Amino acid sequence: MKKVFIKDLLGLKGRKVVIHGWTHKVRVLGKLAFIVLRDSSGLVQIVVKGRRDLLQKAKRLNMEDVVEVSGLVIESESKISPVEVLADELTVLNRATEVLPLDVTGAVGAELGTRLRYRVVDLKRPENLAVFKIQAELIDAFRRYLRSRGFIEIYTPKIVAMSTEGGAELFEVQYFERKAYLAQSPQIYKQLAVIAGFERVFEVGPVFRAEKHSTTRHLNEYVSLDLEMGFISDEHDLMNLEEGLVRFMFKSVEENCRREIKLLNVTIPDFDKIPRLKFPEAKEILSEYFNLREYEHAEDLDQRGEELICQYVQEMHEVPLAFVDLFPLSSRPFYTMPYDETYGRSFDLLFRGLEVSTGGQRIHDYDLLIRRMREKGLNPENFKYYLEAFRYGAPPHGGFALGAERLTMKLVGLKNIREASLFPRDRFRVEP
Amino acid sequence: MKKVFIKDLLGLKGRKVVIHGWTHKVRVLGKLAFIVLRDSSGLVQIVVKGRRDLLQKAKRLNMEDVVEVSGLVIESESKISPVEVLADELTVLNRATEVLPLDVTGAVGAELGTRLRYRVVDLKRPENLAVFKIQAELIDAFRRYLRSRGFIEIYTPKIVAMSTEGGAELFEVQYFERKAYLAQSPQIYKQLAVIAGFERVFEVGPVFRAEKHSTTRHLNEYVSLDLEMGFISDEHDLMNLEEGLVRFMFKSVEENCRREIKLLNVTIPDFDKIPRLKFPEAKEILSEYFNLREYEHAEDLDQRGEELICQYVQEMHEVPLAFVDLFPLSSRPFYTMPYDETYGRSFDLLFRGLEVSTGGQRIHDYDLLIRRMREKGLNPENFKYYLEAFRYGAPPHGGFALGAERLTMKLVGLKNIREASLFPRDRFRVEP
Repeated sequence: MKKVFIKDLLGLKGRKVVIHGWTHKVRVLGKLAFIVLRDSSGLVQIVVKGRRDLLQKAKRLNMEDVVEVSGLVIESESKISPVEVLADELTVLNRATEVLPLDVTGAVGAELGTRLRYRVVDLKRPENLAVFKIQAELIDAFRRYLRSRGFIEIYTPKIVAMSTEGGAELFEVQYFERKAYLAQSPQIYKQLAVIAGFERVFEVGPVFRAEKHSTTRHLNEYVSLDLEMGFISDEHDLMNLEEGLVRFMFKSVEENCRREIKLLNVTIPDFDKIPRLKFPEAKEILSEYFNLREYEHAEDLDQRGEELICQYVQEMHEVPLAFVDLFPLSSRPFYTMPYDETYGRSFDLLFRGLEVSTGGQRIHDYDLLIRRMREKGLNPENFKYYLEAFRYGAPPHGGFALGAERLTMKLVGLKNIREASLFPRDRFRVEP
Repeated sequence: MKKVFIKDLLGLKGRKVVIHGWTHKVRVLGKLAFIVLRDSSGLVQIVVKGRRDLLQKAKRLNMEDVVEVSGLVIESESKISPVEVLADELTVLNRATEVLPLDVTGAVGAELGTRLRYRVVDLKRPENLAVFKIQAELIDAFRRYLRSRGFIEIYTPKIVAMSTEGGAELFEVQYFERKAYLAQSPQIYKQLAVIAGFERVFEVGPVFRAEKHSTTRHLNEYVSLDLEMGFISDEHDLMNLEEGLVRFMFKSVEENCRREIKLLNVTIPDFDKIPRLKFPEAKEILSEYFNLREYEHAEDLDQRGEELICQYVQEMHEVPLAFVDLFPLSSRPFYTMPYDETYGRSFDLLFRGLEVSTGGQRIHDYDLLIRRMREKGLNPENFKYYLEAFRYGAPPHGGFALGAERLTMKLVGLKNIREASLFPRDRFRVEP
């Protein structure tokens, strides 16, 4: 039962085939009918000629009816597809009985709210499927790159007892007799795996943030591409890795998603090095170059800051990405390795105006970790299982995380991050 | 900064190298010291000869101290490793300051409870790392096989409003102002993706079961390897796919995990076809061949039944796997495609006495789906978003799910499923 996808038809000219798909468009003109059939790989025109029984069937087709077509692959005269199928059989496998709430062919637009309400119909649009094919390729490339460098893929628990980044953004779970939480990140567990001798690990999985924001760039559940590695010298080893990794991920999309790139009109960034700014430099650019004095005493970058830094790097280096390193310790989690009294070895990766990744070197010294926890107002008692690992041989280490939806959104050029999530979860949306 | 792993040393004889790892064993004999160094790729003997400063350092080493060694790769005279490193520098990067609660070298055993309490130390044992390397390979092979057959990897929400398999096994989450649940499976969403035109999808992700059992084969959070495909004829298309898939996964472990297979003494099953029994046949085998009359009226298989069916298939066909197809509709979820009034097109895959996978053809007809829901005592109102998708063109489809930990457990020969989970979640365990 070798499946024939529509994209494979080009190599099957002159052959009889059986294909399946959805009725994308239908036109019946006298003794001729043209059906555009859609499957997950593309569109093809089906021609019905002369056969009265098939013409009757074609006439009764609804948009999105599920059909099986057998016929001959012939040279195409239309612009729809390079080949057509001259049908000799047409079977309706299942009817679409309702009038569609959204136009699948793209002729009529719709509000995002309506699109997400009817997400299954919305996803039928080839442009939307293309977004998720690109996302799948990005993530698969992430895995291939890391596996080839000795990283082991791990799966860590999402129900946890500890909070990594502070307690405000946690979803609570009733875990039998006790309270537990949904993991905000695999931070603690990926560090523990490195310390346990796995050395280099990565994980692709959901993370959960109970933030009450409702913006175009936040989700309450998203896919995090995480890695952690031992035996680094400092955070520059991580930026070196991420530079090569992101370049490889983009290159993989370029090579393996040609049809999707064309359909969505995606521009793949071409770069060798990603410029590295120190946080004080970034502040200076904002306050001096852009003449925004309010950034003189900033301890973090806000959205406008991220956008302007990207604009600056684009103008100066013609690269749409920038690392900003050495963020103030005050705006970073307790486990951040200090650079000096004020700054930490912690960086963001900005891409087309948005932070798509955060990473850095972690503290591997037990006493320093305790001290930093206390300075952050955290109680070491609550991190017992995490902390004790640092007494059994913790190597110098660090890592970073890329947000899959943010990266997809910025690469593809989507306006709202919800479009980069199959079934997005936000402040007011937990269905479908 | 090309990393040198211990396993790479064999090809570097006569070269100077810098390697990193944990102090696995130390012996100091007069002017000689032997250190067994461990990294994620293996063990190597470090020889310290004559250098008084290095001998002093070696003497002070604790088990699990994290060290950097530079030296010359030489022919080995020990059984530890085919080559050794003659040290000319030895730097302690971080001390292990506590006495280890578990023996990492494997000389002294420990109870599973203690091992899981000190899981980070427990995972340092090379045998335990090997389990997770095999698991990572199994899952990566799952992905490679499916991607090459036109499947798209998807990421679906874990916070959901609907229950697929009934309400009893759900963990509740406070999602802002409303109640939500942790997904018991991606069932609904993978079906929706197929209906939305993705056609063939798979997902690797956590699933959550609030069952109060405490057995050697259940976890409350586990990794599910899920797939769903459109345009199938019946459940045999799925068993054909799973047969080839599992064979490929095992073959990949065999080829890419030689060291781990040897270390854990794993027997990789060698098979071409997996025998397929119908549920009534399985019952007959139990009641007649094994003379267990209580199975005559069984509507499901229990653990003993699964074990005996595997024993039977092993004896008859010399294969440690078996499909049991056509389970009674009474013991299967509402979305199961009926075979007749009594049985459904739903199967289990048993492996070495344990169910490792469940799958089947799903109902794609809206009216039948509503009827089956009502017969199961479910309220279609609660499945609004799921049901409406079936009115917009749902193809015939089906799928299955493999439990990653169960498969790993049975392949490797572990006694308890907790050993196949990095940080297991069970009835009484949510830390570390």
